[in-house]
Amino acid sequence: MNPNLTEQMLTWRRDFHQYPEVGWTEFRTASIIAHELSQLGFQVQVGNEVLSESRMGVPSEEQLAFYYEKAKSTGGYLEYMEKMVGGYTGVVGTIKGKKSGPTIAFRFDMDALEIEESPESSHIPQQYGFRSQYEGNMHACGHDAHCAIGLGLATVLANNTDHIEGTIKIIFQPAEEGVRGAKSMVDAGVVDGVDYFLAMHVGAGSPLGTVLAGTNGFLATTKINAKFTGKAAHAGAEPEKGKNALLAAASAILGLHAIPHHSGGASRINVGTCIAGDGRNIVPAHASLQLETRGENSDVHMYVHEQALAVLEGASNMYGTELSYEIVGAAKTCSSSEKLIELVAKAARSVQGVEEIIPSSKFAAGSEDATYMMDQVQKQGGHATYAVFGTTLAAGHHHEKFDIDEAVLSIALSTWLETIEQVYQNEGGQF
Amino acid sequence: MNPNLTEQMLTWRRDFHQYPEVGWTEFRTASIIAHELSQLGFQVQVGNEVLSESRMGVPSEEQLAFYYEKAKSTGGYLEYMEKMVGGYTGVVGTIKGKKSGPTIAFRFDMDALEIEESPESSHIPQQYGFRSQYEGNMHACGHDAHCAIGLGLATVLANNTDHIEGTIKIIFQPAEEGVRGAKSMVDAGVVDGVDYFLAMHVGAGSPLGTVLAGTNGFLATTKINAKFTGKAAHAGAEPEKGKNALLAAASAILGLHAIPHHSGGASRINVGTCIAGDGRNIVPAHASLQLETRGENSDVHMYVHEQALAVLEGASNMYGTELSYEIVGAAKTCSSSEKLIELVAKAARSVQGVEEIIPSSKFAAGSEDATYMMDQVQKQGGHATYAVFGTTLAAGHHHEKFDIDEAVLSIALSTWLETIEQVYQNEGGQF
Amino acid sequence: MNPNLTEQMLTWRRDFHQYPEVGWTEFRTASIIAHELSQLGFQVQVGNEVLSESRMGVPSEEQLAFYYEKAKSTGGYLEYMEKMVGGYTGVVGTIKGKKSGPTIAFRFDMDALEIEESPESSHIPQQYGFRSQYEGNMHACGHDAHCAIGLGLATVLANNTDHIEGTIKIIFQPAEEGVRGAKSMVDAGVVDGVDYFLAMHVGAGSPLGTVLAGTNGFLATTKINAKFTGKAAHAGAEPEKGKNALLAAASAILGLHAIPHHSGGASRINVGTCIAGDGRNIVPAHASLQLETRGENSDVHMYVHEQALAVLEGASNMYGTELSYEIVGAAKTCSSSEKLIELVAKAARSVQGVEEIIPSSKFAAGSEDATYMMDQVQKQGGHATYAVFGTTLAAGHHHEKFDIDEAVLSIALSTWLETIEQVYQNEGGQF
Amino acid sequence: MNPNLTEQMLTWRRDFHQYPEVGWTEFRTASIIAHELSQLGFQVQVGNEVLSESRMGVPSEEQLAFYYEKAKSTGGYLEYMEKMVGGYTGVVGTIKGKKSGPTIAFRFDMDALEIEESPESSHIPQQYGFRSQYEGNMHACGHDAHCAIGLGLATVLANNTDHIEGTIKIIFQPAEEGVRGAKSMVDAGVVDGVDYFLAMHVGAGSPLGTVLAGTNGFLATTKINAKFTGKAAHAGAEPEKGKNALLAAASAILGLHAIPHHSGGASRINVGTCIAGDGRNIVPAHASLQLETRGENSDVHMYVHEQALAVLEGASNMYGTELSYEIVGAAKTCSSSEKLIELVAKAARSVQGVEEIIPSSKFAAGSEDATYMMDQVQKQGGHATYAVFGTTLAAGHHHEKFDIDEAVLSIALSTWLETIEQVYQNEGGQF
Repeated sequence: MNPNLTEQMLTWRRDFHQYPEVGWTEFRTASIIAHELSQLGFQVQVGNEVLSESRMGVPSEEQLAFYYEKAKSTGGYLEYMEKMVGGYTGVVGTIKGKKSGPTIAFRFDMDALEIEESPESSHIPQQYGFRSQYEGNMHACGHDAHCAIGLGLATVLANNTDHIEGTIKIIFQPAEEGVRGAKSMVDAGVVDGVDYFLAMHVGAGSPLGTVLAGTNGFLATTKINAKFTGKAAHAGAEPEKGKNALLAAASAILGLHAIPHHSGGASRINVGTCIAGDGRNIVPAHASLQLETRGENSDVHMYVHEQALAVLEGASNMYGTELSYEIVGAAKTCSSSEKLIELVAKAARSVQGVEEIIPSSKFAAGSEDATYMMDQVQKQGGHATYAVFGTTLAAGHHHEKFDIDEAVLSIALSTWLETIEQVYQNEGGQF
Repeated sequence: MNPNLTEQMLTWRRDFHQYPEVGWTEFRTASIIAHELSQLGFQVQVGNEVLSESRMGVPSEEQLAFYYEKAKSTGGYLEYMEKMVGGYTGVVGTIKGKKSGPTIAFRFDMDALEIEESPESSHIPQQYGFRSQYEGNMHACGHDAHCAIGLGLATVLANNTDHIEGTIKIIFQPAEEGVRGAKSMVDAGVVDGVDYFLAMHVGAGSPLGTVLAGTNGFLATTKINAKFTGKAAHAGAEPEKGKNALLAAASAILGLHAIPHHSGGASRINVGTCIAGDGRNIVPAHASLQLETRGENSDVHMYVHEQALAVLEGASNMYGTELSYEIVGAAKTCSSSEKLIELVAKAARSVQGVEEIIPSSKFAAGSEDATYMMDQVQKQGGHATYAVFGTTLAAGHHHEKFDIDEAVLSIALSTWLETIEQVYQNEGGQF
Repeated sequence: MNPNLTEQMLTWRRDFHQYPEVGWTEFRTASIIAHELSQLGFQVQVGNEVLSESRMGVPSEEQLAFYYEKAKSTGGYLEYMEKMVGGYTGVVGTIKGKKSGPTIAFRFDMDALEIEESPESSHIPQQYGFRSQYEGNMHACGHDAHCAIGLGLATVLANNTDHIEGTIKIIFQPAEEGVRGAKSMVDAGVVDGVDYFLAMHVGAGSPLGTVLAGTNGFLATTKINAKFTGKAAHAGAEPEKGKNALLAAASAILGLHAIPHHSGGASRINVGTCIAGDGRNIVPAHASLQLETRGENSDVHMYVHEQALAVLEGASNMYGTELSYEIVGAAKTCSSSEKLIELVAKAARSVQGVEEIIPSSKFAAGSEDATYMMDQVQKQGGHATYAVFGTTLAAGHHHEKFDIDEAVLSIALSTWLETIEQVYQNEGGQF
Repeated sequence: MNPNLTEQMLTWRRDFHQYPEVGWTEFRTASIIAHELSQLGFQVQVGNEVLSESRMGVPSEEQLAFYYEKAKSTGGYLEYMEKMVGGYTGVVGTIKGKKSGPTIAFRFDMDALEIEESPESSHIPQQYGFRSQYEGNMHACGHDAHCAIGLGLATVLANNTDHIEGTIKIIFQPAEEGVRGAKSMVDAGVVDGVDYFLAMHVGAGSPLGTVLAGTNGFLATTKINAKFTGKAAHAGAEPEKGKNALLAAASAILGLHAIPHHSGGASRINVGTCIAGDGRNIVPAHASLQLETRGENSDVHMYVHEQALAVLEGASNMYGTELSYEIVGAAKTCSSSEKLIELVAKAARSVQGVEEIIPSSKFAAGSEDATYMMDQVQKQGGHATYAVFGTTLAAGHHHEKFDIDEAVLSIALSTWLETIEQVYQNEGGQF
């Protein structure tokens, strides 16, 4: 690996780390990426060219505007940001070789989390001066590293266009947290015509030096925001005038968790949050739930999902409240393609620093919306895999002291570059 | 009081006591009453002449047939029973005077309870040989006495027709227990044109010698049988194939009891019984609830009743079950008419054995369907009251050792006869 | 009424209106009152001289410090504030006559609400420039007027000490909202030895010119904050590791609302708010409820209160969570004394502007903690009443556009002055 | 196979079929088996020699006495029945060879179900005159065939004692339905010292000619009867006097079904039945639930079981009721031993009528208490398997028209005889 490029990837990663933007607000991150890709000679698409209307879990206009303004003063490129107004923060860079060949796509996610980063001096980002400058937000899942790897990959490819056969697409996806963004990119056609699709994550339970060439066991999931709207009334003076949204919510919570197990595979349901009512002596006029359903396969998941909607509706009717709900996230079940697992494993073998290669493993975190892209590519007859590049963590994902071993950046980049070669060999060519 | 009539009333009461027929199966009781009224010269109406299709809580055909057959072999009069097939077990006897005058109606209820009567020798009916011959049924509320008083009244009136002004109706109502029968008689027009309406109960918390000339505080009520029908499935092998009726019932039970209190007055709800499921390892395909709602006034009661139906429906929808429900009983709120309370109180003053006269009191037992008749008469501009004739009880109402002091029979009859005179005086005539 | 005093009361009321301090943070209000009382020659007690440790629902230290600092810069008197650190914001002023006589106490409450005051120009406080300067807080219940009346009363008394017989105490109570403050003052002995106790409210549903000389039908109440603490776990990966506090809360909510009605009188229960959980995919580790119980009398209320605690405890055990709860407010049932109702009514008759005098009425707002003081005085053999001085409102109590007709200030003051005279006449003396 | 023995097995099966005795009441069946074993020269143990006090789900004394009397008049042998009084209806026959060798045990279950057998003429047992003579009971699971095979095996062994090496035990277990009997036999030491343990079932989803040499995937389970005892009260007059057992049950039902899924494997819970309350207008004083928990392995099952008990206890406390519960059945998870699967498979190959041999399969019916015996034998270092002998069914297990193809009797017997030989070969000997 070119030491300058390694250095450059560190710089990118630490820059992104300081400006962590949550899902659909990646104006700075995405516009910088678009700018870099453009400078490198990639054909660049942003905004609604790469995102359809099926975006899920988009924040409020206020929040979108807030981060848009922040991006303006922290180095975002207005040229691209203007196309991203309203949270259309996806970027796709495409480069074509002179020789014909397959279409290979890589996917990197860009969004951060609403977690306050640790200010302790023992925390490396604090110590080295690249702790989050957006108080309350943090890159605590490693997507900053993903972006850096993506730009590193683009750089190498741009400098070696003679070797490219066919087409290479680099997809930078917004809003992976909450599994909100991928479906919208698929619906916009971003993976249409892709023959080989490669997604990745750093860490995820594996130490530095370990590469998982593929992943399976993704749980299908939907993320639902449900709101019961009743009618307030003074609880002492006129309780009968109220429509009690909290009673509806309580019945629903119990009913949701009581949805029967399915003999076809594992399922999950969780009502993770409940916020209800305006005051102790007022019949609660509103109750909002954030919940999620999961299933080991589509049948099981559809069953849980449909039962959940019936429970919500019935519980609302019990107390005369109005139910509204929104699907704010979704992911599919999927398995990595055997052929591509094999190619990635083979590629990893020649990479310095790789000590153990595991063909395929169950996805620890449950759900990922890269599955929408993988599923689409496989449906088209293509190959897809989801690799994990181990990196020893200072603290677990989503923890305020989460930090990676940056040596993973080079390992991931090298493996991807070698994977392209393996794909060409598999297709009968040579990178 | 004619000693022979007193004796006759004892005989009737003890005869009825031995053959206790539950609501809508009073074939023997009603046909004997019809026969006696006819013999006395009353115009007699039975069956669907006095009962509309709005009967509630009618037993199964098997049960109706079972008691019909029993009645045949225990002295029922087929002539009348044939008109009562299917449980049309009401009787109305009418007698008219030569002079014009008001229409006065008396109402007596005839049904018994599903209680096993005590076989202990200390229990008077056992000791004197008139314990129930229908095992499992018992006149444990005193309706046997009511019937005897009604026939005693008929006897005196028939022997004194010269004194009658206008019309006197004696209504023998089936199925008071569970408040099932009165509405159907009202709907059949039984109290149409009635100017003075008098209902009564023996006992009800008052000792012998006490007369309550009126009653108020009847709670409006409906009795509901609700059934959730789901789908059975093996709970281990295929739980997802089931539709769990017991979960629906459990949600409903909690939701029903959680119906908010009403600022307009007291309310009550009770799910008294639940029977669900076919086996430990089967997803319950059915769950049946017996419940009741009550309210201090119509507004409060309608509120509770409507909320209850919404809760049942919503809970059923939560779990994909089918809900069916039936109103198997209903009573109204009502207050006795001031004028008639006054007349009854005045009447009681001259009756031997009466020691205390209370104008009006709250009804201890909660609900009574004579309220349907009272309400109808009051709406027509007439007067209605519900009197209680105290009698010292061996054990409380609905107890297996319930027994009355039979001296109440003469007190009640004398008070009613004197009340007729008071009514005529009030109307300007003389009995 | 002295026009200057009327003007002065307006000034006080509008000053207090601009600096609305919520319960236990009335540093500015209370210290100004203490200063004024002292200037007038009253013996003044503040802080823990008038408040015991049984204060309920005290805000966090941060909130207390926040308002303390605010008070320093908005005219609070440090001399008194220093004795109120930690929220001991009560004041009692005592003045004694030369002649012996009864001890008469008046109680005024001082706290405001967490309501954002309307900025519309049609809202009088905005139009006249005395809208709240504490954003988010508002005197939306009239306690600013109560304080002004209390100071007006003090002023007249200080100028007429020759007429005072015995002792007059003016009690300024913190934290009436949420019924949090009175018990603590009673426990500190503030009403010990009081013979005549007079509490009041402006508005409360009555128009200007109406005086309610007494109030009854106060509902006993407790305000409970309950918290279920479970254990978080990833809902997809290891749901069995969690202890679900939201399931405990949901079971409790249904169980609380399902507490049976009581035949001894009306009762109420309301879970007004629920906040639970940290994220959609996390088993909720905490759930906090704000609830209240009410009862028409002590028996009914104790029943509901005890049932509620059992439901909370049982629900917590169902799911292996820890329950903690705090009583953050309480009030009693009480009735105004007949004798004192009579004296106030008589007093009001001579007051200009009074058009209708109602001896006694049910308290519309349900609960009031002045009942603790009333009950204590009555137990000591004294007389107590709670009067309402009608005032036509721009919008209802606790509404962002709530505003009073300030003419009520003089009516209330005059009635209280005349009531003192009536008390002396009743005792055989003369003011 | 000796045609006479085949005929004899048919006769036994059809005889047992006519007298179906439910768990712990197999007085007739067990005493006939004991008699036959004794006649054949087996050492016979019955009653508390083979059953410890850890019997679960024993019926009432009335029911035990009822079937005891029936057995007396339908051919039971008093000599053995007298040792079975109280439901100690197990039998173990032991026979020893002259040569030393392993201890081999076979287990057959004897109990029937509370199912009314179809009287339709198309139903073979009806057509051939061997339909159940115990109305309401039926051998609808094939245990009658199991007993016949067990006696067939005993007959062949008794006639070939020269060939026996070591010891052969034939265990006839009561109360398999509801998984109630096996643990008690294990605790009595019945499988102590057993080297090879063979259990079996006919049918279970496989057609005639198929043999499953082993079974895995048994779900651990406990069967629980829970009862909430509250306090009755008139729901209209004094609802506050009651302790509502049905509310406790409803909270428990929802809470039980809401026990979180376990990441360690599949789990199940089912509240299969609920019976509660005495009348519509009475606060329910009792509620009884029949429930079961299941888990794919011990950890998962213990988790569900312990959560269930906590839910029951907490729900009871919520409403002030008393909880009592009883474990009325239990089974373990277990896998068949590889070595023994192999021997049975080998044995089946030489049996006439066997068309397909499947080494091992998941147990379709969920749970079996033979697992207690298998687990104990494996813990001792022995081998255990659970074989299924396919037989084409007229209707599924537990169906009123359940019937087997009796050709399975010979297939099973032949396989067991050949398995003994395989065991001896495995041990180095020869049958």
